[in-house]
Amino acid sequence: MADTPPPPCPEARARFLEACHFNADGLIPAIAQQHDTGEVLMMAWMNAEAVAETLATGRVCYFSRSRGALWRKGETSGQQQRLVDLRLDCDGDTILALVDQTGVACHTGRRNCFFMAIREDALVPIAAPLVDPDQLYGHNHA
Amino acid sequence: MADTPPPPCPEARARFLEACHFNADGLIPAIAQQHDTGEVLMMAWMNAEAVAETLATGRVCYFSRSRGALWRKGETSGQQQRLVDLRLDCDGDTILALVDQTGVACHTGRRNCFFMAIREDALVPIAAPLVDPDQLYGHNHA
Repeated sequence: MADTPPPPCPEARARFLEACHFNADGLIPAIAQQHDTGEVLMMAWMNAEAVAETLATGRVCYFSRSRGALWRKGETSGQQQRLVDLRLDCDGDTILALVDQTGVACHTGRRNCFFMAIREDALVPIAAPLVDPDQLYGHNHA
Repeated sequence: MADTPPPPCPEARARFLEACHFNADGLIPAIAQQHDTGEVLMMAWMNAEAVAETLATGRVCYFSRSRGALWRKGETSGQQQRLVDLRLDCDGDTILALVDQTGVACHTGRRNCFFMAIREDALVPIAAPLVDPDQLYGHNHA
């Protein structure tokens, strides 16, 4: 397990936020990658508040476009992402979050969200769920 | 070097395209990851034509939002991406392209685009260019 670095000082967090180019909806795409294995876990969106909270708390927070609210990853399922490093790309319009994922990243119970691919000329899931989504979210989760 | 698989049949490519949820602008974000090292190289956008061309040719093609045209990665710089596997996420709204990157992915001459991070309370580049951008694009490139 990687060391948890201390959160950056407020000024450094402000510099990071200033360098982010949010889109017309005030959002920036954020890719989550497991820091040690390199597995790409998921892609979601952050608004400025989510970026600021992620940097301040060391726990990854997104913005849920469907709910229109901050989405503290794992707050329902327990499958949190501890921040190891937050990186911004050359154009300032995409974030890469190196994380330590507790359990699984995908709401389907799979370790990562990118499991549909073409095999033998059919589009199929190439990974199986590791946990039952009902266990993560309760029986009423669609 | 990974084997180059034969391109999927037209029907499988059509299934993949049908499963893609393009946004209101007809675009879907696509993450490029070096297939063997796991390095996340860049994030760009594809339209339906770019997805179709990528699957048909085995060479990654994006859609340039600034130019409003297909962007065959490497057509100017020579820094192509050979497709190893194209994956779609659980919601069908993000693509992960496993690629074999020729040279560097970033227009700054760095191997990947995600090189800005906080170190010692400052936002700094954490990787140096491996090649001079002038060599990739000629001296008039901004």
